[in-house]
Order: sequence, then C-alpha cells, then structure tokens
Amino acid sequence: MKASKQFRGGKQTKIKDADAELKPLSSGDKAKDKMLVAELATQIAVQQEMLFAAGKHKVLVVLQGIDTSGKDGTVKDVFNVINPQGVQIVNFKAPSSIELAHDYLWRVHQQVPKSGDIVVFNRSHYEDVLITRVHDWIDDAECERRYAQIRDFERMLSETGTTIIKCLLHISKNEQRSRLQERIDDPAKHWKFDMQDLEERKSWDKYQELFGKAINATDADHAPWYVIPANSKTHRNLAIATILLETLLDLKLTPPDPKPELKGLKIE
Amino acid sequence: MKASKQFRGGKQTKIKDADAELKPLSSGDKAKDKMLVAELATQIAVQQEMLFAAGKHKVLVVLQGIDTSGKDGTVKDVFNVINPQGVQIVNFKAPSSIELAHDYLWRVHQQVPKSGDIVVFNRSHYEDVLITRVHDWIDDAECERRYAQIRDFERMLSETGTTIIKCLLHISKNEQRSRLQERIDDPAKHWKFDMQDLEERKSWDKYQELFGKAINATDADHAPWYVIPANSKTHRNLAIATILLETLLDLKLTPPDPKPELKGLKIE
Repeated sequence: MKASKQFRGGKQTKIKDADAELKPLSSGDKAKDKMLVAELATQIAVQQEMLFAAGKHKVLVVLQGIDTSGKDGTVKDVFNVINPQGVQIVNFKAPSSIELAHDYLWRVHQQVPKSGDIVVFNRSHYEDVLITRVHDWIDDAECERRYAQIRDFERMLSETGTTIIKCLLHISKNEQRSRLQERIDDPAKHWKFDMQDLEERKSWDKYQELFGKAINATDADHAPWYVIPANSKTHRNLAIATILLETLLDLKLTPPDPKPELKGLKIE
Repeated sequence: MKASKQFRGGKQTKIKDADAELKPLSSGDKAKDKMLVAELATQIAVQQEMLFAAGKHKVLVVLQGIDTSGKDGTVKDVFNVINPQGVQIVNFKAPSSIELAHDYLWRVHQQVPKSGDIVVFNRSHYEDVLITRVHDWIDDAECERRYAQIRDFERMLSETGTTIIKCLLHISKNEQRSRLQERIDDPAKHWKFDMQDLEERKSWDKYQELFGKAINATDADHAPWYVIPANSKTHRNLAIATILLETLLDLKLTPPDPKPELKGLKIE
C-alpha cells in the first residue's frame, strides 16, 4: 500500500486536534527522519527533471492550513531542492481590487501549471470557502455553490492534463499557541507575526469545521485531499515529500529519449 | 415578447442555409434600418455608462461565425459608439505555444469582464470545439468533455455575476462565396483574405453541423445562444444591437446616485 493513502481525506473527514500529533511515517529518530526528507527531495528533483524534459504533464500542489501551520516551511524544506526553473510557488494574499472585480477563480486559473511544470499554491482558491465563510462574507448557500464551482474547475484541470495534490497542514490549537508565542518572543520573528493572527485564532473551531467541510465537498480521486499531521515539522515534510514522490512516480516518467541523429556529431 | 427571443438557439437547433436570408427585424427599408441600428447603439451606450458607473455587473458577448460571417463588422458597427474605456474587444487567434501549454480555457478566463465592463469575444473558447473538431485534432469524446467543461465554466461565470450573450453569425454558403470573391477581386481587401479560408470552406457542412451541436450542448438561460441571420449586414447589426440592448435593459440599471454631501459645495 502507498504510504500516502493513510492521509487521504474524504466524505467523512473530521479535523481533530489529537490527529495533529501523529507521526506514522517517522522512524522514531528525528535525525534519521531529516535524512529521509533530504533523500525524498532528491528523488523528487530527479522526477521533476524528467517531467520538465517531457513537457507533457502538469502538476499542481495546493497547501492549505491555519496560520503557523507550516506552509512556508514546507515550501522551504521540500521544494527548494527542485530546479526553480520548473517550479513556481504562488502565494495568494488578500485579493487586490482588480482581482475582486473578477470571479474568485480568475486569479487562480492564471497561475495553474503549464505542461512540464510543478506549481505550488501557498494558500489557494480554498481561502474563498474558508476565511470568507468564517467571517460571514459569504453564506452557506454561496459556500455550497463555490464547492461545486471548485469541483468543476478541478475536474477540468484534471481532464486537461493536470495532476492535483491538495494538502491540509493540520496542527493543534496548542501547537499554534506555542508557535505564535515564539513569533512574539523572538524579535527576529516579529515580521512573521500579525495582530490579525490573534483575531483569526478566536475562530479556531469554525476553521476546523470548515476545513472538514471543504475536504468532504471537494475530495476526488483526480484531486485528492491529504490531511497532514503537522505538529512535527519533520514529520510534515516527510509526509508531503512522500505524497509528492508517490504521485510523481505514478506518472511513470521516463528519461527523455536520446536523439539518434546526434550520434557521432562533432562540433567544428 | 422580446424581439431577441426569436433568435434563441436550443436543444433542437439546426443550422440551415435558408435561414441566413431572414430579416425578421427589418423595416423593409435599408436606410431606415441603418438609422435604427444607430439609435440602438446610442441607447446601448447610455446603458453601458450606467453599467460602468455602478461597477456591479459584468457583461460578456461571444461572437462566433464562419470566415466572412461579419464578426469584425459587428464590432465596428455595433460596439464602436460605446465608450472604449468600458468595453474590451478580445480577438482569439491561433493559440501561442504558452497558451497551448495550458488548458484551453486558461487564456479565455484571463479575458473575462470585470465588474462594470462589457467584453466582446471575437471568436472564443468555442473554437476549441469547432475548428479543432473539424480537423480531427480532437475526437468526439474529447469534444463532449469540452462541452461539459464549457457548461461548467459559463455557469460559474454566471453565478459570479456575469451576464452572457452568445451570437452565431449565420451566413449561407453562397453568401460566403461572394464575400470571399470580393476580397480577392478588391486589392484593398487582400489583407483580409487568407488562402486557408478556401481550405476551411471545403469543410462547410462539417462546420454547420458542429455549430448546431455546440449550440445544442451549451445553450442555457444563463448563457443563451442566438442564431443571427447575417446575409444582410444591416439586419445582423439590427439583431445583435437589439439583443444586447434587451439584455442590458433586463439588468434594470439606474443612473448613479447623486452624493448629498456635494450639495452646495463650492470650489475655492
């Protein structure tokens, strides 16, 4: 069985605090786990080079998670070893006025991968059914409409050659407390802290409920959700690297064909 | 009854040569008809200004039709009176290599209207189920998948505030012959002539069949198709201007509210 299977979300997914502590992929030895992440990242880089050379498949990785859940850390630890020419990291911040004047998928669709590319969404169109619903900027009926629109959108991407992986980085409320406290206590981390984060923390339960709902509504075999226990950063990296590598291996990429006409060619 | 209703396509639409000659909206007097087009265009311009000022609705007009059917002429005759600040004309040509490396809706979605705007697609995503199918670049199964994707895409646009009108400019095979011949005989029109047009003309019947299929598969009340008898350019303009105006009137736009705080304000 694939290691990634055990993280699959689905119709019955509930996001529970306790699950954030799990480390099913850990060897029990942190140093060893870190080595494993580095090995996986190297294998991912090999796959990515074949993906880029073939220019056939498109790969989209969606990272979602509450503040401090480790989205930036994942990008740094898992994706930095890949040739930046074939990987784009897209950060979705609060929409601009021109973005707000379009449908919410407009800015998202612009950033989807082209053939040969891996694109990582650091936050995504799922914000449009999360923060927007938490703050009652949209109601339940609109939220359901958006789930359906997102299902349609992701099915179209899949049918036109995009392999999609969606990861919810799941931390516990306690873990968030200690990570926020760390950002407050360490002046070097102040730039990562925003008073708004404390406001959002008040809606913790609502976020957990909406994570579950979004996963239930939009999980599909062609656009699977994975719920990543992420209290341990090393385990989080291990899980995401494993899922990404398993997904790339499923594409059965092969090294690009040599060109016979180059045989024996001498440059003058 | 609205004048536009009689042009509505639907599940049973067949594209027949004879229908291209019809002129149901004509007064019988060409000069009078042209005056009417000018009047309609002026009324459209008034509506557009309210649309722009309110910045709430988005309007998308799709123009499709075989070579020489009058897409450029429609843009010139019906849309030129509108303030260009609130109208964008988007010409979809053969896709670039970067466009081909994405899903076919990628370049289309980028160009959809934002709030307050009217966007006219001169050719559109429907090329991806027309020329592509005529030349067997895609098969029937892929064509059906695309119909479904286009339905989903247009439903999403509609649900997020876009009013959609789709017009097939319908000319007869004879009319195309005479228009192509004119482009050949008049050196000033050579730039509009492409040898490829003669190749495409060989697939006339296939195009007519696929127009009908696309309309049957993608007509919806929120994204209606209109089949415009277009052998007469004046009648074509009359029909499209009528449909556009009726559609804008349905939005029940109102002049922007005056600002009470400006009352009596004197500039020093």
